[in-house]
Amino acid sequence: MCRWIAYRGETIPLEQYVTAPAHSLVVQSQRALESTASTNGDGFGLGWYGEHSEPGLYREVRPAWSDENLRYLCRHIRSHLYFAHVRASTGTPVTRPNCHPFACGRWLFMHNGLIGSWSRIRRQVESLIPDELYGSRVGTTDSEAVFLAILGAGVDKDPIGATAKVLSALTEMVSEKGHKEPLRFTAALTNGSDLYAFRYAANDNANTLYYRESAGNVVVVSEPLDSEHGNWKPVPPGAVLTARPGEAVSLEPFLSQRQIAAE
Amino acid sequence: MCRWIAYRGETIPLEQYVTAPAHSLVVQSQRALESTASTNGDGFGLGWYGEHSEPGLYREVRPAWSDENLRYLCRHIRSHLYFAHVRASTGTPVTRPNCHPFACGRWLFMHNGLIGSWSRIRRQVESLIPDELYGSRVGTTDSEAVFLAILGAGVDKDPIGATAKVLSALTEMVSEKGHKEPLRFTAALTNGSDLYAFRYAANDNANTLYYRESAGNVVVVSEPLDSEHGNWKPVPPGAVLTARPGEAVSLEPFLSQRQIAAE
Amino acid sequence: MCRWIAYRGETIPLEQYVTAPAHSLVVQSQRALESTASTNGDGFGLGWYGEHSEPGLYREVRPAWSDENLRYLCRHIRSHLYFAHVRASTGTPVTRPNCHPFACGRWLFMHNGLIGSWSRIRRQVESLIPDELYGSRVGTTDSEAVFLAILGAGVDKDPIGATAKVLSALTEMVSEKGHKEPLRFTAALTNGSDLYAFRYAANDNANTLYYRESAGNVVVVSEPLDSEHGNWKPVPPGAVLTARPGEAVSLEPFLSQRQIAAE
Amino acid sequence: MCRWIAYRGETIPLEQYVTAPAHSLVVQSQRALESTASTNGDGFGLGWYGEHSEPGLYREVRPAWSDENLRYLCRHIRSHLYFAHVRASTGTPVTRPNCHPFACGRWLFMHNGLIGSWSRIRRQVESLIPDELYGSRVGTTDSEAVFLAILGAGVDKDPIGATAKVLSALTEMVSEKGHKEPLRFTAALTNGSDLYAFRYAANDNANTLYYRESAGNVVVVSEPLDSEHGNWKPVPPGAVLTARPGEAVSLEPFLSQRQIAAE
Repeated sequence: MCRWIAYRGETIPLEQYVTAPAHSLVVQSQRALESTASTNGDGFGLGWYGEHSEPGLYREVRPAWSDENLRYLCRHIRSHLYFAHVRASTGTPVTRPNCHPFACGRWLFMHNGLIGSWSRIRRQVESLIPDELYGSRVGTTDSEAVFLAILGAGVDKDPIGATAKVLSALTEMVSEKGHKEPLRFTAALTNGSDLYAFRYAANDNANTLYYRESAGNVVVVSEPLDSEHGNWKPVPPGAVLTARPGEAVSLEPFLSQRQIAAE
Repeated sequence: MCRWIAYRGETIPLEQYVTAPAHSLVVQSQRALESTASTNGDGFGLGWYGEHSEPGLYREVRPAWSDENLRYLCRHIRSHLYFAHVRASTGTPVTRPNCHPFACGRWLFMHNGLIGSWSRIRRQVESLIPDELYGSRVGTTDSEAVFLAILGAGVDKDPIGATAKVLSALTEMVSEKGHKEPLRFTAALTNGSDLYAFRYAANDNANTLYYRESAGNVVVVSEPLDSEHGNWKPVPPGAVLTARPGEAVSLEPFLSQRQIAAE
Repeated sequence: MCRWIAYRGETIPLEQYVTAPAHSLVVQSQRALESTASTNGDGFGLGWYGEHSEPGLYREVRPAWSDENLRYLCRHIRSHLYFAHVRASTGTPVTRPNCHPFACGRWLFMHNGLIGSWSRIRRQVESLIPDELYGSRVGTTDSEAVFLAILGAGVDKDPIGATAKVLSALTEMVSEKGHKEPLRFTAALTNGSDLYAFRYAANDNANTLYYRESAGNVVVVSEPLDSEHGNWKPVPPGAVLTARPGEAVSLEPFLSQRQIAAE
Repeated sequence: MCRWIAYRGETIPLEQYVTAPAHSLVVQSQRALESTASTNGDGFGLGWYGEHSEPGLYREVRPAWSDENLRYLCRHIRSHLYFAHVRASTGTPVTRPNCHPFACGRWLFMHNGLIGSWSRIRRQVESLIPDELYGSRVGTTDSEAVFLAILGAGVDKDPIGATAKVLSALTEMVSEKGHKEPLRFTAALTNGSDLYAFRYAANDNANTLYYRESAGNVVVVSEPLDSEHGNWKPVPPGAVLTARPGEAVSLEPFLSQRQIAAE
């Protein structure tokens, strides 16, 4: 079920959230608390922005907790906007291209969730990816397919709208013909400047998502990084968090289940 | 461009052809002679039949020449029918699911070659895979897609016919609209009993393929395993070799370039 | 803290104990019950005997639970005597040469336990390895050093005596100058014919060890492979189990803590 | 036989020498020209200094040429002093701790060469490592042992003297009792500020070593990174290059073979 963190703010070393806190993401790779899978040992990844418009990427199939490289990189790389993810596979192979985050051009994406009956609707989902982006599909996960579909749905003009369009289509796919398969989508998306974090589900409860904001810096996490739970605010189900440079974090409704049901 | 060997005959340890000969497949992984890529270090794989109707599989992303596991397995596993492959990627990622051979049910397949303009026609090729087999696509190579397309084209009734049908479609795809992209297909296919080895190309010269037959045992190879070249007979371009239990090896024409041109 | 199984008896596929049971070793790699480390995801290994006097070996740094190769190998390899091990590192790096089991000549060894203050006494322990065996040290674990020391202490003539000699020396090392560091040694040793399983500790409680015997077949395990706990007998602390072809399993005292204390 | 580059100068992205040039280190990993091993596919490593006194490290067992992470890191990490190394193993296993460079405290080291009869003199060499540094031995290579011996020989006060002391001892070890085994040592050493590069051999010819200096920036390489060979000056055999901030590169004799012979 995966665990992840996303950070946007002043430039800091990655270690500040990935490896240092008491319940850091690396600790969560071995012992997650708010997840059905307590072990997230099926690979991991880092994505970060520096001086280039395209992000850097480090993905590896080994568990995060024993990766010496990860510790060195988190100590030495600094960024104003970065993603980190530890994976618990829901069936697709443990390969680097199947590890999150996914990068394409200046966009970066990671996901915690599930598309029910993936094997049945995989082709339908992949058909949402436009031809010109299909060559960027280097793995086989549902998450990467959804990312490329979002890119193809007009992400540059309207990131939230593009995501809503794709998730709306997915909701129909998992719900059609009375299947009512679960769809859980707790995801982060960025263009290197603005950060979007989604918490959404159809036919199921949404996975947990929290954030902490202080002095213009925001961290969004699958579960709190320390025991001071009061500092961590939940992102409500059916909501999207937006963090833009120089603006306070905002929350808006995102395809609430009621809306979907009404369609 | 990959190197491979296929064996059918009496039960022998895999090491007899994979690791032991002077110019064994493992030696070829570091220093191939008849290949455009002299290094085949982008992963490797073994597939073999034992007492089950489905083959065993061992695939790894590291180069064959330094894999201690490979030496142990080749020494300890015995088989009457096995494939071994060392990979030189033509662009798709180095992951286990992208390593040859590919297994599905009782079928096993491996390939040395290229589909020109893969990124342009990938979706067309994948659309040859029937829905019920699409879930078996766990990697992203052209080779795996072709394998699943062959399985879907009636391999159980007519393996050579099914392969011809798919290769004929591929030949059209690489040739349409005057593109004339190269298609090279030097591949082995088996159901655990009968062995088929194809040497074919369109818009290009076919990759090399040799075989050696003695006392009912046949070895098919990308390049000879020793310097006694007289013992190794070339499979002609546009031909398929068939090795069935209790029968002598036979060679037949396979979609010769002239035939294709005439279609 | 690692989990392992050792089997001696009629020839069976490895899967019968490694992957098939409800609480198989592969399940234990993700969720061990009687261990301080519930995740054993720091690599794994198989060692087995076939027609050669030296065992085969398959060791890998990835977790056992996601290794496709492991499933294929366990299904296709059959053996009358095999070891399987999932590792939870106590500090040494996650590399293949640090994964258990360890092989040297016809001997095979695996271990679950700990040598307290390893960094302080590492050189002392390594000095127990005779020069002619030091070249066989390809990793950096305490377990491999202990194995090579046992081989050098006369394992061919008296396996239990050689093990006792080394463990006695280790007990002194961890106890000297009032340090009283823990030493836990729950290990399996075989020459391809006779199987020895040790449960021993000094300055600490011994790790769990169980066995099941029926119709001349014996399985020794860190923890039961199913919920029928009545079928699994504990090996007592300070004991060694011996399983020889054609003989019933026997248990004898092994360097009981009292004996050590009295020395 | 390995290939490496070392850079000291103004802060630049690692890609400038590791991945970008026509005959970059990554190209050399597949096709080295001045090396007995043309393939350097047995792992690789990066070490670099940023804002911390200790270097960052990225080491991986896969070949450099297919590692996507390496490309991202070289593009995104900038440094004023960095090492990069592609490995061709001379026998020790392909593990991350056996990949160069090696880091300990603020020191970084990498090596291209060979200690003849390593298995015979391994213990002698390891005995040069002081107890307080022996815990830092996490791999099994001769190179790491030599590095830790140099650190223990007074590297902080006199890096060249400490290296000379260890290499002199090694020269005796490979030469004693008329063995006359080859010793080849082409290595780079740094404390994060000063860069030392050694070219030395006993009982054999020294491996190649070149450097290029311009505008206060110096690159030291196993073989030139482009075809403009006039720009690359050889470091003579039996010499050490020193590059300190604000000083021109200097070359001095280092344990010339004549000196050794006279001892």
